[in-house]
Formats: sequence, structure tokens, C-alpha cells
Amino acid sequence: MPEPIRLGIAGLGTVGAGVVKIVRQQAAMLEARAGRPIAISAVSARNRDKDRGVPLGDYAWEDDPVKLATRADVDVFVELMGGADGPAKAATEAALAAGKDVVTANKAMLALNGQALAEQAEAAGRTIRFEAAVAGGIPVVKALTEGLAGNEIQRVMGVMNGTCNYILTRMENAGLPYETVFEEANKLGYLEADPTLDVGGIDAGHKLALLASVAFGTQVDFAAMQIDGIERVSIEDIRQAADMGYRIKLLGVAQMTARGLETRMSPCLVPATSPLGSLENATNMVVLEGDAVGQIVLRGAGAGEGPTASAVMGDVMDIARGLRLPVFGQPAATLRKAQAASARTPAPYYLRLNLQDKPGALAKVAAAMGEAGVSIDRMRQTQHEGTNAPVLIVTHKTTRDMLEAALAAFPATGVVADEPVSLRIEN
Amino acid sequence: MPEPIRLGIAGLGTVGAGVVKIVRQQAAMLEARAGRPIAISAVSARNRDKDRGVPLGDYAWEDDPVKLATRADVDVFVELMGGADGPAKAATEAALAAGKDVVTANKAMLALNGQALAEQAEAAGRTIRFEAAVAGGIPVVKALTEGLAGNEIQRVMGVMNGTCNYILTRMENAGLPYETVFEEANKLGYLEADPTLDVGGIDAGHKLALLASVAFGTQVDFAAMQIDGIERVSIEDIRQAADMGYRIKLLGVAQMTARGLETRMSPCLVPATSPLGSLENATNMVVLEGDAVGQIVLRGAGAGEGPTASAVMGDVMDIARGLRLPVFGQPAATLRKAQAASARTPAPYYLRLNLQDKPGALAKVAAAMGEAGVSIDRMRQTQHEGTNAPVLIVTHKTTRDMLEAALAAFPATGVVADEPVSLRIEN
Repeated sequence: MPEPIRLGIAGLGTVGAGVVKIVRQQAAMLEARAGRPIAISAVSARNRDKDRGVPLGDYAWEDDPVKLATRADVDVFVELMGGADGPAKAATEAALAAGKDVVTANKAMLALNGQALAEQAEAAGRTIRFEAAVAGGIPVVKALTEGLAGNEIQRVMGVMNGTCNYILTRMENAGLPYETVFEEANKLGYLEADPTLDVGGIDAGHKLALLASVAFGTQVDFAAMQIDGIERVSIEDIRQAADMGYRIKLLGVAQMTARGLETRMSPCLVPATSPLGSLENATNMVVLEGDAVGQIVLRGAGAGEGPTASAVMGDVMDIARGLRLPVFGQPAATLRKAQAASARTPAPYYLRLNLQDKPGALAKVAAAMGEAGVSIDRMRQTQHEGTNAPVLIVTHKTTRDMLEAALAAFPATGVVADEPVSLRIEN
Repeated sequence: MPEPIRLGIAGLGTVGAGVVKIVRQQAAMLEARAGRPIAISAVSARNRDKDRGVPLGDYAWEDDPVKLATRADVDVFVELMGGADGPAKAATEAALAAGKDVVTANKAMLALNGQALAEQAEAAGRTIRFEAAVAGGIPVVKALTEGLAGNEIQRVMGVMNGTCNYILTRMENAGLPYETVFEEANKLGYLEADPTLDVGGIDAGHKLALLASVAFGTQVDFAAMQIDGIERVSIEDIRQAADMGYRIKLLGVAQMTARGLETRMSPCLVPATSPLGSLENATNMVVLEGDAVGQIVLRGAGAGEGPTASAVMGDVMDIARGLRLPVFGQPAATLRKAQAASARTPAPYYLRLNLQDKPGALAKVAAAMGEAGVSIDRMRQTQHEGTNAPVLIVTHKTTRDMLEAALAAFPATGVVADEPVSLRIEN
């Protein structure tokens, strides 16, 4: 009779309860696949008395997650509390120090402390698995580190915050302004306690930082990422983009260039008919590009009880089966410190300006752009609104620096009212 | 210095040459990821003198793949010859008997002999990996057996023959009949030597049989599959389907039902706006549905040197890293013999009939369908062609048996000219 693998689960929110359900309801299937039983020894959460819709009486209770993580009857510490520091990190460190493997859904903890934790895990001969931290149920960390291990990865792109994608598609489909849909999402409980984590692009940025590390063999470096949220995306831009065959998505892109590693999270225009452009509501999508495999697209639910618990269980099953990789796919000591490159890979840009209704205004703007070296692919002036004329411009491929130079030259033309909107187009 | 893992590669066609290229060109990257060098000891192919665009002088040559597979300096036998029986199977068996692991792209060999080979591999303490056999570069076997290991899989669907999807999308986009596009594809070298393997649905059927086994923990059973090819798909049906918002795809579906395991490969209508409906040309797509994760969609190149070599290398890297699973994800002895169920899961169907232009013809057909218990969702009669009137019917959900009963009753109505076309609609 093979030994069971014994879990200690800290955090019994939606995901934690989902993991307990799977372990209880699918015991025979899990055992057949793993070749050994999956058992739960102990659980921990802030409030012992809350009804979580799943019986917990069979398991020891620990108030203190550090105690849970170091119990003698725990083989794998399942960290589902969240938070970059504090109890999650303390318990993870304690678990590794006590010789436990760790499975976590905690993107913030790993995006900010991943290298140190990976080094600690490897020194202890243990691993940390984090499939659930990125794109919910989509097995993208596994695809990158294992399935595509024969590829030099060239680019990773993803829509990885379901709440932002919900807000953007709802704005488009209902024709509502950002503020209204933000309030709707808030009432529906879709937003984090600090909504900036979602709409500010930080949560998605944490995920992208982890993917960049496993894709490029580099030390996770969240601080180097350029991040813009969706707070300033207007219904007007969504409409104009749609008119030109694009949709606006909060898109993360990690790309290795001759100058170093570019990582950016920002609202971008993508072709409406592309896989990324067709993504509705809270669904996530990750696009992986490798030198041998070409382009692989993965799509699925990015959050929620079942999908996230599925990812946690995938990691648990790997450990139960003895499938153990270094935390970021290769030994932490071999991960390079990436040269962070500012986002200078050329791309076309979408610009929306309000021009004062003066003779020669358009010519002045075009001249300023030309002087900055930015050439115009398409331009159109829409109906006047009062004394200003909205103008839309799609540039040819240009660098962000050159575009910034053009934008910086606009005030001196004396014809550009308001701050122009500029969004990258990712084809 | 860790020991290299040493490959013996049999078959140096496109894929074999691609594998050699990756091992040569990415040696440092592969070693960093695997923690040990990936080396090639020996190769084998039918013709030693052919230029394959990659230097082979560093490797021993074997004319006989069985000799290659059993060489003392080979740890992993990489079988890229193809063929269900014959040299591929003999060499695979010899490799296992000699204690080697096997990596193969050979769907036919495993679809027809998978259970016996899995049992032999496990008795020898070895494994056979076959990611490259299914959907080219898409890591779908890994996603099913590992990433989604916590899920009870409910349904697997896929478009997995790029040639068929090329033919169907080319027919639609160019408005050309099947025969013309088939000839085009033949001239372009897209078809197997025996084209029935492609257009008859057999190649895709082999792939589906393997996915069904890993998805449901059942013994691979190609003989139980219901297979229809695309040979009878007409441009008329493609046009009519498009008019109603559908596209026709050669779709494989494996589904566990209360009556047993349904596996079928057939031309189906799918919504044009769904991920499957949006698939163009030779791209492959697999849709996985699990009880916890919901729906995961994987998309990528299904054939070609790079994508298939990428999948082979993923398996090689797993073995080099010591990530070893049983052949079909769980021990061969625990795989159930599935009860093969005829495809009776209810679905809507598309019917195209030619009705003789007689009074009351439509009523007679509708009555025959009603008597068979098939109810009509939508019906339309298009412009007359001579004395016959083409009629399109979309049924409500019905079983294949009831539909067959309705079709069987048509001749007695005396108003149905020609054989009706019936295609399942998969939503």
C-alpha cells in the first residue's frame, strides 16, 4: 500500500474550499492517477467557525499557518492565503525550512520574493509550484517549462485579469463609460479590496512577471515592468478602435530583445478577429511564441473556485507523482538577472487628439509628428464637438521614444486641446 | 558533471531532422533546463546518402532501427518512422526489452497497439511518451494527464487533421468544390501517400483514440470509434451552413456517458464565432472540458518540422529531467476497458434534402420526421433547381438513432430525391 501524500492547507476561501472538495469527492480517481492516496492532514484559516460548504471535521485545525506548515504530518504546504508578505511568506519559508514542498496561488508573493524563495526551496531540496498563480485553470506554467522546453521562447502575451477584461467588454457591449462599469463590477464583488490591484494592472503584472521568468530563464523582476492600468480607457476609444477593426485589451507582453527583456502591461489595441480580440468577459488567454513550435494559444477561465482549485490540484498531483522541477523551471542559481529594457520594440500606435478648430491645425500636428520621425498610416477627423475636432491617427511602426517625442511636441503647436490618448497596437 | 541523456533517432524525415537541429543548435539552453546535456548517439533511416540539411557525421549510423534501439549507448529511443506495425513497432518493442524509454510521434502504432506496448513498457520499468503524436506542437497530452489531473474529464473535442481543415476552409474561402481542392492539396504535397488516412478521418481518429485514453483512463480502442471523412462534404453544404452562422469542421469528440464511452470523428457544424469555428487552414485546436476547470482551449500548429520536433523535445526533456509518468497517465493495468457506446448523445442536426416539386411534399417530410420523434427547429426552402426544391432543416436535439429512423422513412414518402445529407451540430 503506497504512502499517501498529506496536505496542509492554509486559507479556506473559495479556492481552498474548492481544493478540499476535489480531494474529498475524487479520492479514487486521484489515487488511480497518482498511484497513492491524496490526504489532508490539517487546515488553517482566520475564522474557524465559518461555514465553507465542505466538512472539515476530519482535519486538524491550526490557527497559525506557520504551525500548520511545519506539522510532522504535512508533506505539502498548500498556501492559499494571499498577500505578498506577512503570514503567507512566513508560512512558506517555515514550510521549506521544515522540508515541505509548497503549492501556492500567490502571484504577489512570488512576483516580489520569487528568487529568494526559489533559492531557499532548492537549498532545502524542495520545490514551490505556482500554476494557480497565473491564468487560473490554464496550465500555462507547465506548458512553458515542460511542454515547450525544447523551444527558445520569443514572446509571451496574455490577457490575465478577468475583471479588467470583463470591464472592457462590458463597456463595449453596453456602450457604458468606465466609471459606470467599474461601479457595477464593484457591486458584483468582482474587484479586489484594493481595486488598483485589478484595474491598475498590478495583479496581471505579477502574473506576467512570473511567466517572463519561466519563459526566459531570468530572475523574476516585477519592478522592471512598465505598467498602465485601464482606468483611463474611454468608451470613445473603445468605439473608435472597434470602428477600425480593433478591440482594447489589458495586454501583458514579455519579449526578449537584443537590448534586454521588455515586460509591459498596458491597454493595447488587438485585431478584433484575432484570438486575443475575440476574448469576452472574464476569460483569460495566453499566447506563447517559440522558435520551433510557432504560436500556441491557451484559453480558459482565469479565476473562480473550480479553475483555480484545478490548477492547485495539478501541482499537488505532480508532487504526489514525483514530478519535481526547480521553482522557475531551472535551478535558481542559473536564472540570469535580465537587463530590463524599456519598451522600445517598434509598434504601430493609435492616437486620439482633440484639435482646436483653426486653419492648418491638422498640418501642424502632422508636421510635429514628422519631425519626431513618426509616420502616419491612417488618419481621420470625425464630427466636430463644439470648437474642437476629434482626430484619430494610426501610426506606422514606431518606437515608444519617438512617439513620446511627438507627443511632447504637440503643446508647442498651439492647436492640440486636452491630453492626447495613445495606445499601442499589438498585431 | 551530470551524465548526458543519449538519444537514438530512427527516422530522419522532416521531424527527425528537426529534432537533430534543436539538439545541435540549443545545446546550452537544453542543458540548463534539463540539468544535464542532451546528446545523440546514433541515427537510422532508409537512405544514408540523402542530404537532410543537418550534419549527421557526429553520430553512429544504423541501417536497422532494431539495432539502433538496442545500442548500449542509447538511453531514449526516438521513433519517427511511422507505420502502425512493421519496423516502428519491432524497434519500439526491442527498445523497451532493452530497457530504453521511447519517445514517438506514431499515432497509428499507439492507437492500434497502445495497450500492449504500455504493458510492456511498465513491465520493463520504462515509459513511452507520445506528445508529438497528437495535435503537433500543442502540449495537449501533458495538459490532460498532468495539468488537469485533478479533473474528471467530461468531453474532449478537437480539429486535429490540418489537411482536412485546410481543404474545408479553402473550399469555403474560394468557393471551390471538394474534388478541386483535394487535387490542389495533393499537388502541394499536403496529403499522405494514402489520402484516405487524411480525408477519411483515420489519422485524426488515431489521435482522438489516444486522447480519449488519457482523458478517461480507458484502454485505447480505435476500433470502437465511429468515423466519417470529409469526402462527401459539398460546397453547397458549406455555403448553407455559413448562411446559418456555422462552419463545417472535421471534429473529433470523445465523451463519457452513462452508457459508456462515445468516440466519433465526423464532419460537424460548429458556430462560426466559436473558437473551433474560427479555425483557419492547417491550424489544430483541442477543447478540453473538466468538472473543475471548465473549458480549456488549446490552439497551435498541428504538423510540420518545428511544431512536431518541439513536442518530441518536450518528451525528451521530461525524461532527461526524470519526469516519468505511465504511458497513458496511469498504470496500464488500471486502465478500464471502456464500454463503447454508439453516438447517442442528443444533438441538433443539419439536414439537406432535395424535394420533388409536388404539392404537399414538405408536409410529408415533416410528418415522417415527426413520426420518428425528430422535431424541427428551423426549416427553409431555397430557390428551385429544375424540378427539385432544396430544403434545409435544423432539428432540435435528437439522438442519432431517431434521426436514422427519420432518414429511413424518407423513401416511402415518395417525394425525397437523392440521398439526404445529415451533419451533426456541435455547440
